[in-house]
Amino acid sequence: MEVRERIRNLQEKMKEERIDYYLIPTADYHNSEYVNDFFKVRKYFSGFTGSNGSLVVSQTQAGLWTDGRYFIQAEKELDGSGITLFRMQEEGVPTIEEYLSQNMKEGETLGFDGRVVPASYGKKLEKTLKEKHVNIRYEKDVAGGLWADRPQMPGNSVSVLPEELSGQSVSQKLEQVREKMKEKGCTAHLLAKLDDLMWLFNIRGNDIAYNPVALSYGFFTMTDAFLFLQERAVGDALRQYAAENGITIRDYDEITGFLEKITGEKVLLDEANVSYALYRILRDKAEIVADDNPTELLKAVKNPAELSHMEEVYLKDSVALTKFIYWLKTNIGKIPMNEYSAAMYLDNLRREVDGFLDLSFPTISGYQENAAMMHYEATETEHKELRAEGMLLVDSGGQYMGGTTDVTRTIVLGEISEEVKKHFTLVAVGMLNLTAARFLHGCTGRNLDILAREPLWDLNIDYKCGTGHGIGYILNVHEGPQNIRWRFTDTMKEAVIEAGMVISNEPGVYKAGSHGIRTENIIVAKNGEKNGDGQFMYFDTLTYVPIDLGGIEPSYMQERDIARLNDYHKAVYEKVSPYLTEEERSWLKEATAPITK
Amino acid sequence: MEVRERIRNLQEKMKEERIDYYLIPTADYHNSEYVNDFFKVRKYFSGFTGSNGSLVVSQTQAGLWTDGRYFIQAEKELDGSGITLFRMQEEGVPTIEEYLSQNMKEGETLGFDGRVVPASYGKKLEKTLKEKHVNIRYEKDVAGGLWADRPQMPGNSVSVLPEELSGQSVSQKLEQVREKMKEKGCTAHLLAKLDDLMWLFNIRGNDIAYNPVALSYGFFTMTDAFLFLQERAVGDALRQYAAENGITIRDYDEITGFLEKITGEKVLLDEANVSYALYRILRDKAEIVADDNPTELLKAVKNPAELSHMEEVYLKDSVALTKFIYWLKTNIGKIPMNEYSAAMYLDNLRREVDGFLDLSFPTISGYQENAAMMHYEATETEHKELRAEGMLLVDSGGQYMGGTTDVTRTIVLGEISEEVKKHFTLVAVGMLNLTAARFLHGCTGRNLDILAREPLWDLNIDYKCGTGHGIGYILNVHEGPQNIRWRFTDTMKEAVIEAGMVISNEPGVYKAGSHGIRTENIIVAKNGEKNGDGQFMYFDTLTYVPIDLGGIEPSYMQERDIARLNDYHKAVYEKVSPYLTEEERSWLKEATAPITK
Repeated sequence: MEVRERIRNLQEKMKEERIDYYLIPTADYHNSEYVNDFFKVRKYFSGFTGSNGSLVVSQTQAGLWTDGRYFIQAEKELDGSGITLFRMQEEGVPTIEEYLSQNMKEGETLGFDGRVVPASYGKKLEKTLKEKHVNIRYEKDVAGGLWADRPQMPGNSVSVLPEELSGQSVSQKLEQVREKMKEKGCTAHLLAKLDDLMWLFNIRGNDIAYNPVALSYGFFTMTDAFLFLQERAVGDALRQYAAENGITIRDYDEITGFLEKITGEKVLLDEANVSYALYRILRDKAEIVADDNPTELLKAVKNPAELSHMEEVYLKDSVALTKFIYWLKTNIGKIPMNEYSAAMYLDNLRREVDGFLDLSFPTISGYQENAAMMHYEATETEHKELRAEGMLLVDSGGQYMGGTTDVTRTIVLGEISEEVKKHFTLVAVGMLNLTAARFLHGCTGRNLDILAREPLWDLNIDYKCGTGHGIGYILNVHEGPQNIRWRFTDTMKEAVIEAGMVISNEPGVYKAGSHGIRTENIIVAKNGEKNGDGQFMYFDTLTYVPIDLGGIEPSYMQERDIARLNDYHKAVYEKVSPYLTEEERSWLKEATAPITK
Repeated sequence: MEVRERIRNLQEKMKEERIDYYLIPTADYHNSEYVNDFFKVRKYFSGFTGSNGSLVVSQTQAGLWTDGRYFIQAEKELDGSGITLFRMQEEGVPTIEEYLSQNMKEGETLGFDGRVVPASYGKKLEKTLKEKHVNIRYEKDVAGGLWADRPQMPGNSVSVLPEELSGQSVSQKLEQVREKMKEKGCTAHLLAKLDDLMWLFNIRGNDIAYNPVALSYGFFTMTDAFLFLQERAVGDALRQYAAENGITIRDYDEITGFLEKITGEKVLLDEANVSYALYRILRDKAEIVADDNPTELLKAVKNPAELSHMEEVYLKDSVALTKFIYWLKTNIGKIPMNEYSAAMYLDNLRREVDGFLDLSFPTISGYQENAAMMHYEATETEHKELRAEGMLLVDSGGQYMGGTTDVTRTIVLGEISEEVKKHFTLVAVGMLNLTAARFLHGCTGRNLDILAREPLWDLNIDYKCGTGHGIGYILNVHEGPQNIRWRFTDTMKEAVIEAGMVISNEPGVYKAGSHGIRTENIIVAKNGEKNGDGQFMYFDTLTYVPIDLGGIEPSYMQERDIARLNDYHKAVYEKVSPYLTEEERSWLKEATAPITK
């Protein structure tokens, strides 16, 4: 087996380099949620293809750590590799830090590529292994060097986002960032988070699938702004734009040398996104102020231009999805289709939309029990045929000039049980209940989550994920700091919901082996009445796609719930119908008809 | 004016003692929420009678800090005293620490009685004034020494709570406390919080009005338990009980000398309740582990015996309040009554209840616009006459052998406006909505608060307080750590709701100058179904008193809300009617009749 040989090669190299344990996480130099193939070193050495996992190799053992979403997949993919699976957060399973501190001997050496480990985690390893006087070797990509057919590092062309789309110039944005730097008493700021960099500089790239970002760094003082990009990614237009805006472009690889020359600065940086390698340089040269990137919150609060473009884009995207649902419901049982071909049909509808750039993530299309797996992905070769019964869950979205979309509908293809109808109805009730929230400024997602979850908790059912996440603008479909969830781990951020924040609203029911339901609209927070009691807020909806009435049983709803659904469907018809064919329109009229008890 | 002379005397004494600024807070030696008259030194020197306030005196100025509840009262009471009012949390108003650090000069001396300042606040003062090299003199009660007619320190007889009532022996409780000490690596524990001491030792006292606690301290090692009480508070029965349970009783005043002899211990203590004076002794003698008292959480989770006694007591208390409402509604406009006389009538009904010990707080009886003041207290001399119009808000409770009660009803005495009816109805809807919550273990009050508040937030109305607080068992009507609120300040605790916790549920509407509505039931958290999604929980109700249908307008309610109110009223009638007279019963039948739209 290939993997065994690769690991043997790595072990040989480790001996040569006098490294006792070698750690290969799954990250790029910016701790991005998704990474380019160039960075998939862990996949190369383990054979495990999941999006989250870390490999630890010693001369006697190799172990892979991954989370609950991937246990079954990892078992399968690791079979015969000799790699031990460590099921994260299961009882009795050590964390990587615990494993290393239990197994490493006094004075041994731990190696990893310091560029793919965030500063915060590197510091944690330092702290854990200090007692054993473990040496940390982070300067060399030992494993990557053994990957013969490694893909090239991406360096796709970077484009400038016109101000008509960004709504704010880079100078205006830089001013706000410098204001925050001043507040924190900093003289400089190192920014390594890719979507924050794109937002701040009003540029977009194409180095990570579905995420329009470019490998880059930013370094800012009170007077200068440096943008580090790969030479080949920079064209004339970008060069001119940079010159006009007082931005100094440097080569991506120069960041190390650049930081080594820093003296006497007080540097603001986010240790979750700056790599341990860069952190180690700065630790000796400067005073570090570890805090959130100021861009994170600024980017999350969409400006009026962004919001108005998003409204347009979400309507176009809603039309595409509505057309898909019409096609699906009209043709099911008449022409052959499967999870994958249905997803392709939808993807093609999106591609035809004016301003389409890319999908915002691979379309999830799960039929019947497959929908109960939250991260299920049908492929050209592995998928279920669709029949005129049960339900298909479709979670999809696009990148457009004017916004990033994300929407889920569960579509009823035929007969469903009374229990499934109950679940379907209460998922819709929860989604509409959260949308209708009126709340005081100061609330976070922790305060609001129960509005969506309560109808399911009433049935002793929970969904094991948050209710909502922030959404980027022609950027990553997941962004922070806002989110809607009822509890938080240490590494999660809890943010006050501000007017202009765009958030997903996606409760669901997942019954393993049986069915999965998710109904997701995207909502945007707005300011309502301000009075002596405070600033009241509410949500507007961006998504206008019918919720399948075939799944709705009005007897599980209050009058208020019914009115909310009818009002929503009235708006769907008004907004979407002008863009449909005659047949689609008359179908939509039925699909959005008011219901009663 | 008397106060001016008292302050002059204090200033003289300060000169003599070489103290430049003197601080007089409102606290006893245990940082109790309410204090005995003996500790009201601040009231003596300022004339201000509110429950929260601190006086700072220098040779040139005297200032009083209090919070928003008391601004109007403090203005009135301080008039002519020469004392400046500092309105806490108003813009531009310094905190005491800020005031001191702005006004005190290099090397000056700040004095206070270190026994009435909690360790946490003393440490804060130390830290703030360190830069100016301010000396802190905390060993002497300089101000108290000038109070000629000062009341005697209370030292009322302490009684033992039979195990039938406590449900758990002191040994069992001590074992749990020692378990927690061990977990935190401590060898000893100093406990100064009075209700925690009462709970742990299964004793009750009478040193603070409405709070059945005795001035006391506890000190625990892994083998010994010391209880410090005033000599005169200890009778033979208590002495025998202590001996039988391996408890060593020491004199209350010996605590200082006792702690001075400590060596080599690692002492667990809660810096919010241990005084700065005791903390200063221990700081030099022992290693301090600052953390919550283990008793806090143990006490909050009521055991089955406590819960079963509370159920009985709450029913008796509900009967008394129901009888009061009947009397009020039958006699209003026929016999003269006022806010105060009505409260007295209710207090007398409670006094007749079997097992009654005391009120759990002074009855709040607020008519019309007076009800909008959350802490309004009618007196024998200052009160409003009640007429057959508008509403009377009554918040009251009792201490019984078997439990501490707290309940609020707003009673409709005649005509009310449509707006008031809307507010009244939605307060009831919110209260019933929170009561009906089904939630996963792990939720805190922050997750649940919106269930009660949402119907009012929908109208852009908020109430500026939490929705609920923990309730003691034959102890303080306010206890922690649990509470239900949507946001927390730094000093507030947020606790996971555990089965057995008893919590108030009291949303309200307060429209200054117009009307006030509060409907309060007491609820108890219980475990429901446990499945793969987690441990589900729900609330049971302890309070069974009709909610005035004269304030309810069904058109503002969903079917579910109406069903909840009807179900509640059905239970009220079933539980309460057996204890009523014929006339009362037939009235209650009407008052709890099902409503429809």
